[in-house]
Amino acid sequence: MKTVFSELHALQQVDTEFYRGKWVDAFEIPRRAELVLDAVRRADLGPVIEPEHFDLAPVLAVHDPAFVRFLETIWDDWAKEVGEIPAYPNIWPPRRTRMIPTVRPGAELGRYAVDMSSPILKGTWQAARAAVDCALTGASLIEAGESAAFALCRPPGHHAGRDYFGGYCFLNNAAIAAQWFRDAGADRVAVLDVDYHHGNGTQDIFYDRGDVLTVSIHADPVQDYPYYIGFADETGAGEGLGANLNLPLPWGSDFVSWGSAMDQALSRIRAFAPDRLVVSLGVDAFEGDPISRFRLQGADFTEIGRRIGRLGLPTLFVLEGGYAVAAIGDNVVNVLQGFQAA
Amino acid sequence: MKTVFSELHALQQVDTEFYRGKWVDAFEIPRRAELVLDAVRRADLGPVIEPEHFDLAPVLAVHDPAFVRFLETIWDDWAKEVGEIPAYPNIWPPRRTRMIPTVRPGAELGRYAVDMSSPILKGTWQAARAAVDCALTGASLIEAGESAAFALCRPPGHHAGRDYFGGYCFLNNAAIAAQWFRDAGADRVAVLDVDYHHGNGTQDIFYDRGDVLTVSIHADPVQDYPYYIGFADETGAGEGLGANLNLPLPWGSDFVSWGSAMDQALSRIRAFAPDRLVVSLGVDAFEGDPISRFRLQGADFTEIGRRIGRLGLPTLFVLEGGYAVAAIGDNVVNVLQGFQAA
Ligand SMILES: [Zn+2]
Ligand SMILES: [Zn+2]
Repeated sequence: MKTVFSELHALQQVDTEFYRGKWVDAFEIPRRAELVLDAVRRADLGPVIEPEHFDLAPVLAVHDPAFVRFLETIWDDWAKEVGEIPAYPNIWPPRRTRMIPTVRPGAELGRYAVDMSSPILKGTWQAARAAVDCALTGASLIEAGESAAFALCRPPGHHAGRDYFGGYCFLNNAAIAAQWFRDAGADRVAVLDVDYHHGNGTQDIFYDRGDVLTVSIHADPVQDYPYYIGFADETGAGEGLGANLNLPLPWGSDFVSWGSAMDQALSRIRAFAPDRLVVSLGVDAFEGDPISRFRLQGADFTEIGRRIGRLGLPTLFVLEGGYAVAAIGDNVVNVLQGFQAA
Repeated sequence: MKTVFSELHALQQVDTEFYRGKWVDAFEIPRRAELVLDAVRRADLGPVIEPEHFDLAPVLAVHDPAFVRFLETIWDDWAKEVGEIPAYPNIWPPRRTRMIPTVRPGAELGRYAVDMSSPILKGTWQAARAAVDCALTGASLIEAGESAAFALCRPPGHHAGRDYFGGYCFLNNAAIAAQWFRDAGADRVAVLDVDYHHGNGTQDIFYDRGDVLTVSIHADPVQDYPYYIGFADETGAGEGLGANLNLPLPWGSDFVSWGSAMDQALSRIRAFAPDRLVVSLGVDAFEGDPISRFRLQGADFTEIGRRIGRLGLPTLFVLEGGYAVAAIGDNVVNVLQGFQAA
């Protein structure tokens, strides 16, 4: 299986993040991608290639144009008004307000951000575009006949919605790839999100669509990020009714309950009979993850890969979260090797 | 005119606030209230009295019960999970999410907060209740026959909506007093907000009500806080249609344009013929204000008071913003003396 990777990910880099009332060491750091790359190479998984560059059309196929334009321009506006420091919101729209544009970069950040974890830096746009390029290059490998590919994306994407960013995510790499498959001729595409956190952005993007099935296994949003969304009763709307499946699990869940949720996920995907599968591959369900509370072991990730492989679908893996830096490489490679051994 | 003041305001005190990407010296500090009190005493404006204590009923008459319960309990929940540090949100609900309660204090903060300026501290609830007591004690003085009273409230209130807090505000002192006048028998009450910033919370609370006229003269929300709300085309809804008047002005406005907006405000209030008037008295339209961009002079505040006085209405003044600490006392007293001299 080929891995698609861009060095440009390192442009998104901060030392600290504002978390529960104070600044702590950042969790989403460049070292994560470097360690996944090392593990891919060590495991001799296959060639590591650079992404091709795609234009904005696939991004605009899932994201709001004004939001995309905001991401592209906000750093310059912010740097001009405030200076070259990381751009964080300090205000956001109250309920019952319209979303009228302002002339102030801080207020524009608040219109589009949903948390304090995802500062806009000088290189954020470039890094986010490179991550999209990785996902789309992986998708085009599959379109050209490969049975699978691994898009080693950073920054991650699954928390980015139609018109919002957050949770370290700016553009939704997995959703952009899923839509690209559709536009390349696939009738039905499934997205399986195995990250510890609900794939709220992906759900948001495809919520009223019947042609893209979105399935997520994740921490109960009553207990954990992204909160507010990811509940079992969110099953889609309109033509998308029934095409969104949320499988929230409580803190402390191990592979007994996680694996059982996965079986539900897989049988739904089988019933949907997609032409292509996109896997939002976060490995923060790992027991040692510093911000998560599931208890999956290293070998469980191999089993996850094996079960995905048994679907027999052309599959694009897209890297999402995972913050137990020492183990992230092994856990990701376990999934990919399990898939190949299926 | 009597002034109602409680020392408990000092329980709301932080040294810094997160503003445009970094921590800066806090603008909304206890010294503000102390200097207003000093100026009131120096000017011999009248007796300074302690507030009576009111129960929660008048608060619940304008605020959502779950929000009020949140404000009352969040410090304990936060301190238990995170520790005794100021409680700030670091996440808030994306668009198109339901507002489902969580079990995490950080996420609950995000459900109810609209900015980073208003941390919940150990004494926040007590300070906010004391400010409400000041406003209600002032209102009861008027109900008892006084022609005017000054509620020296801190924390301020006009940015607090039905179910959200922010902009240094937790409970909407002016709105609570206005509703209390209604419940005490007034048929119609007007709220005039002269603070530099739009009185978004007050607008939110009374937006669909025809019995309480809300009028605000403020910085254009395209340019300044609270952004997103406070536009001229927001005129009320349902039975409240026509009972909300926003008079936004551009940065740099002086008393020529401000005074002309005020004349519009006053003629609307005259036409409404209220039984009681509540003035949200912020003095941050002052030229020297560090976070504002109007250019009112000290003497202009005297003229504002005089014009309000010419309405001839029983009037409750409720302190809101004003951050030019050296001048805040004089500017406030100018309004009150102008009123008395009308
Ligand atoms: Zn995650
Ligand atoms: Zn103000």
